[in-house]
Amino acid sequence: MSKFAKKEITKKSDNISEWYNDVVLKAELADYGPVKGTMVIRPYGYALWERVQEIFNPMMREKGVQNAYFPLFIPQSLLEKEKEHVEGFSPELAVVTIAGGEKLKDPLVVRPTSETIMYSMYSDWIQSWRDLPVLINQWNNVVRWEKRTYLFLRTTEFLWQEGHTAHEDEAGAIDMAETALEWYRSIYEDYYAIPVYLGIKSTAEKFAGAKTTYSLEALMPDGKVLQGATSHNLGQNFSKPFNISFQNRTGKNDYAWQTSWGLSTRSLGGMFLTHGDDDGLVLPPKIAPIKMVILPILGKDDQKVLNFSKKIKEEVEKGLKGTEYEGRVEIWDNPEKTLGWKLSETELKGIPIEATVGLKEVEENGVVLATRLILDTEDGGIKHRQVRLEEIGKNVLELLESLQRHLYKIASRYLEENTHEATTYEEFKEIMNTKRGFIKAFWCEDAECEKEIKDETKASTRILPLDARQETGVCVRCGKEAKGRWLFGQAY
Amino acid sequence: MSKFAKKEITKKSDNISEWYNDVVLKAELADYGPVKGTMVIRPYGYALWERVQEIFNPMMREKGVQNAYFPLFIPQSLLEKEKEHVEGFSPELAVVTIAGGEKLKDPLVVRPTSETIMYSMYSDWIQSWRDLPVLINQWNNVVRWEKRTYLFLRTTEFLWQEGHTAHEDEAGAIDMAETALEWYRSIYEDYYAIPVYLGIKSTAEKFAGAKTTYSLEALMPDGKVLQGATSHNLGQNFSKPFNISFQNRTGKNDYAWQTSWGLSTRSLGGMFLTHGDDDGLVLPPKIAPIKMVILPILGKDDQKVLNFSKKIKEEVEKGLKGTEYEGRVEIWDNPEKTLGWKLSETELKGIPIEATVGLKEVEENGVVLATRLILDTEDGGIKHRQVRLEEIGKNVLELLESLQRHLYKIASRYLEENTHEATTYEEFKEIMNTKRGFIKAFWCEDAECEKEIKDETKASTRILPLDARQETGVCVRCGKEAKGRWLFGQAY
Repeated sequence: MSKFAKKEITKKSDNISEWYNDVVLKAELADYGPVKGTMVIRPYGYALWERVQEIFNPMMREKGVQNAYFPLFIPQSLLEKEKEHVEGFSPELAVVTIAGGEKLKDPLVVRPTSETIMYSMYSDWIQSWRDLPVLINQWNNVVRWEKRTYLFLRTTEFLWQEGHTAHEDEAGAIDMAETALEWYRSIYEDYYAIPVYLGIKSTAEKFAGAKTTYSLEALMPDGKVLQGATSHNLGQNFSKPFNISFQNRTGKNDYAWQTSWGLSTRSLGGMFLTHGDDDGLVLPPKIAPIKMVILPILGKDDQKVLNFSKKIKEEVEKGLKGTEYEGRVEIWDNPEKTLGWKLSETELKGIPIEATVGLKEVEENGVVLATRLILDTEDGGIKHRQVRLEEIGKNVLELLESLQRHLYKIASRYLEENTHEATTYEEFKEIMNTKRGFIKAFWCEDAECEKEIKDETKASTRILPLDARQETGVCVRCGKEAKGRWLFGQAY
Repeated sequence: MSKFAKKEITKKSDNISEWYNDVVLKAELADYGPVKGTMVIRPYGYALWERVQEIFNPMMREKGVQNAYFPLFIPQSLLEKEKEHVEGFSPELAVVTIAGGEKLKDPLVVRPTSETIMYSMYSDWIQSWRDLPVLINQWNNVVRWEKRTYLFLRTTEFLWQEGHTAHEDEAGAIDMAETALEWYRSIYEDYYAIPVYLGIKSTAEKFAGAKTTYSLEALMPDGKVLQGATSHNLGQNFSKPFNISFQNRTGKNDYAWQTSWGLSTRSLGGMFLTHGDDDGLVLPPKIAPIKMVILPILGKDDQKVLNFSKKIKEEVEKGLKGTEYEGRVEIWDNPEKTLGWKLSETELKGIPIEATVGLKEVEENGVVLATRLILDTEDGGIKHRQVRLEEIGKNVLELLESLQRHLYKIASRYLEENTHEATTYEEFKEIMNTKRGFIKAFWCEDAECEKEIKDETKASTRILPLDARQETGVCVRCGKEAKGRWLFGQAY
């Protein structure tokens, strides 16, 4: 391959899976690890995850949630304490049987999630209502041995945050679980520019061991649904087997009310799928690690061009400082690469804004700002904006804001256009066979009926939207009484 | 235990090991995990590790090192590619043999360090000198199955950063390894307030697979030596078996020159040991998660006292903003705890400054700032400083700076007083038997001689200080020619 060759990627419209793999690999977000199903998150991809941490930590801090770290290995015997939980995770476990050259008596499970190990500690730490609430989060790696894997979206090891709290009463737990759901909504809608539906899971689809699972669900461009993040009201399902008991305010013994909630690197995969196009990634400006790239055209008078490029960088950094768009502005002056290569690289990497700088720009004391997409502005859409040096900071900020809004608007329109109502089962099957997307339909909440719908249409219940209990009707499949319209979809 | 009972800890002077465990557990830095040898890092301890990340990330970024994430599991076959390396780590490995309900054909080692898995990827990514240098770091968890464990200082799983770089020539690798060493020196001396010796390891003590290991070594209060962090020039020892080859600037094929370097949560244990006293932790102000605690005395006119406490908090936060001492200022207004309990808790947790606020302070519009230790000032040492509200920001900053300097000064004096020279082996043995500490002595660099010194005195070679090659002499034990004075000590 010539060093100047543009990296070729499959068109998104031709084959979305191939396009996705091409983009993730060639934009250097990630690479396949040596063990099947594992992934290396490369610096450009990891910078996105660091950005998520930077956004999410202050949200948690304001509510008093603190970060901590619990061990990777869970004794098999601990995991078995909560029956539903161990059943849910058993098929996916990785187990250490040898350590320090010896066979272990009690094998160690590599955490698939940390309820059991954390709650065995909470049991020691919590004695009185004065010790509550306990509000702890950890950013860590977990392992779930999946058969079919997909970069970011499903890998045997992934990174996430898992929050685990304990409260005096169920009201405290419900408030916490709903607050976490709201944080996730904000991450998706305000940062990833992905509109989502919020609701609760059916009994079959909820987290193994939860009383109620809240979830947010997003629609991908292929019409399939991505579970974005989940938040669980665990009730006393764990506090009883783990003996997290405490003396309450009236002096009586009680068991703590708990929650757990998690957001993983999977969510980044959803963002790549949602916004990318035939040229590569499109990153929402609030999340993009690099906000803008300056491309100096080097020839004679290099120094003038480079100096002007540096001035632009300074002005832009000044303009973005203290805003939600503060971040890296890079000058790509590597003489080993052509301008054409660099331009296509800014597109592949989804960099929000690019400006090319030559002698003409130096003389005119201004540049043309090019956005990654044509923006849907009042005057009919723009991709280029000519600006003078002294106005560049303000203009870059405006364009980043417009691009952020624009991406959300396109995704919202898509979600709206692909959320259907089905009143008959024929209609339901027809929609799932032809266009997929979300279907809103009454369902009787019977697990058998749910399973048959899934077998017949590949669509599972996704959630009962939070405001859906206001309507009653009859089940779209069996005709029995239904207490709300559920959202159905084919899950990733 | 009464809810008002002060937490009792062993005196440091009575039994330093018991004191250490008491402090780590009762200050809620960490707790024992359910699996022997594992540790839970609680929020107060984890906040220290987050502070280290906050300090270390910008150092790396300035040099162009980027964060990334590589998989936890290493196929046994990959680990075996570098002979010395696998031999060095084999006794300490944890091995996954079952995953997804099936026995694995190629067992997976839980990473004890990531050279092998990272370099198998580097081999794919590096083709030309244009791809170099590769400068990648990861913050992650690693597992080494140790028999004897100790909270923070030696645990079967620990957190660390591991930097891994590849360069065009050895000069680039040496520069990188030495730069990392300098970063570690700064973390220890400028932040942890622990003076260190820098140097290179003997062949027996170097990292399994390294060409040269640089290390920094610190003296603990019991006279034993802690290896603070290490940085390795790997030469081409890994690039050859892992085939990290590239076309160099002259068009010829070459193998990359590499480094790796790491700093772990172990270093925090060294900091607790170094500065703590009979009352508990003493945290250097630059690292302390909580810089100051305000203790309101609640009674009648609560609101006045609380309002004044809030004003103090605001003034202090304003005074620290933008300095290296920016951080949390807390008001401990929990009415469930007595003032006495809170005062002893600020000591146990090593909080640099405390101020008690009652009606008298409100009326006088000022408070007394109390430092965790008596400061060694020109006028003979102070612990208390009376200040008016409007001057409080400046004064807290001054006291934090003084405390930071003071801790370093005490530790430096201790290091100096406990670094001995030995010219005869009798003298060497006498020192190691009675007071330990560091011994500077000529050594012949023969591995057999080194082993015998260790068997006879428990002291191992720690490092050859960076400037030590200027002297020659005869080996303190065998009398053979010696090309420099080495530092010896009993290692943790």
